[in-house]
Amino acid sequence: MKTQSKKIVLIGAGNVATQLGLSLKRSKHTILQVYSKHNTSAITLAKKLNCESTDLPKKINPDADIYIIAIKDDAIIQIVKQLKVKNKIIVHTSGSSDMNVLETLSKNYGVFYPLQTFSKNTKVKFKNIPICIEASNKETLNVLQTLSKSISNNVQEINSKQRKAIHLAAVFACNFSNHLYSIADQILAENKLSFDLLKPLIRETAGKIKINSPTKIQTGPAIRGDKKIMDAQLKILSGKKDYQQLYKLFSKSIIASNKK
Amino acid sequence: MKTQSKKIVLIGAGNVATQLGLSLKRSKHTILQVYSKHNTSAITLAKKLNCESTDLPKKINPDADIYIIAIKDDAIIQIVKQLKVKNKIIVHTSGSSDMNVLETLSKNYGVFYPLQTFSKNTKVKFKNIPICIEASNKETLNVLQTLSKSISNNVQEINSKQRKAIHLAAVFACNFSNHLYSIADQILAENKLSFDLLKPLIRETAGKIKINSPTKIQTGPAIRGDKKIMDAQLKILSGKKDYQQLYKLFSKSIIASNKK
Repeated sequence: MKTQSKKIVLIGAGNVATQLGLSLKRSKHTILQVYSKHNTSAITLAKKLNCESTDLPKKINPDADIYIIAIKDDAIIQIVKQLKVKNKIIVHTSGSSDMNVLETLSKNYGVFYPLQTFSKNTKVKFKNIPICIEASNKETLNVLQTLSKSISNNVQEINSKQRKAIHLAAVFACNFSNHLYSIADQILAENKLSFDLLKPLIRETAGKIKINSPTKIQTGPAIRGDKKIMDAQLKILSGKKDYQQLYKLFSKSIIASNKK
Repeated sequence: MKTQSKKIVLIGAGNVATQLGLSLKRSKHTILQVYSKHNTSAITLAKKLNCESTDLPKKINPDADIYIIAIKDDAIIQIVKQLKVKNKIIVHTSGSSDMNVLETLSKNYGVFYPLQTFSKNTKVKFKNIPICIEASNKETLNVLQTLSKSISNNVQEINSKQRKAIHLAAVFACNFSNHLYSIADQILAENKLSFDLLKPLIRETAGKIKINSPTKIQTGPAIRGDKKIMDAQLKILSGKKDYQQLYKLFSKSIIASNKK
């Protein structure tokens, strides 16, 4: 990992800003300041990073090399109206926002999208996390490449259309999978069973796709065409309309993908 | 792990029979014979286990202590009609079949359901795999307990109703999750992106539930109520009706579970 120390202002103090700030600091960059409209969040993160904080857009430090906006998509548009960064580099970390929502702020703008799920209190090792970067010009791209390579070995140049596809794929593979875990947890709890029972199976299912195409290793009643079990399982779900519908739709989709 | 060596006949030569046979053999039980209606499958597994094989029900060895039926649910009913095991112990390994489908065969019957996804060629460590057992009487339960404890540290007594709930929960958490990985893979491929990009995120998502309730750590546009992203993502899916429906149903279900 190359290091070329940068002065950075973090705009946002949520999960992504927290983990990114900590990781950049560990890689010897200087976090000058944390901005958040929630003053206590800004202070909490600033303490962790040993830097200044503010909740006023006009007090954002003008001396940084790079401004990183790590806030909700809707809020990006709001903060853009209030920011002045002249020709500094400004990036956002969003999977779904276009790069050019930043174009009014500077000629040097881009995206720095780490493809991972973050919690404030779980330390994240960025080393293997894909970082998807995009930039308005070659010079900015070079800076973002050096910056992202200072914390990750997996840096990818990805355009806005591709980044949106990645985000959508992540919603399916991760957000929706997690909801399936919730449904399973609920089914077990209703039968006085612990969710712990399923954990080895969940681990193995997610582990198998490291080396296998998920389509090729699909298992379960639907892919076997086991109508008897499918009917019996739908019956267990009677009274849970959403889950029945999900069950039917998944079974249909699994059967269809098997025919391709 | 206790070992009290048993003589076992395996009825079936698929993924479960293979991994179970190998594991039981490693734990010093004697696999007397493999039966499969597909002779080549029977021979292949018998070679691995260094035992006899047959494809004729009437040639099934009568001298075993335990007969383990590890075949599809529909096929269980067929083989039951052809078997003669007198008062030996007979069990099946199915998540969805009632225990009493075996009651005509012996007074000593039960279920031995290992809660894991199996492939023929991936060696499975049974040590941490939950084995759900159920038996027609106390003596049989004791034998199944000793047998399952000889290969796993996670043995649970589970009745037929609970076992069906576990199987259903596993279909949601594992079979359906894997299909979500397939959908994600397809979305990425259509945008000339590698599925490798998502693997760290999938690993982290499945890893997080080790210590967290999945309901409490749900992330993504739906739980945030980010309608703008949800609309944009549905638009990307236009032309893929099944995936759009899944997306809508998941979003609805995630939002509903957040209100509980």
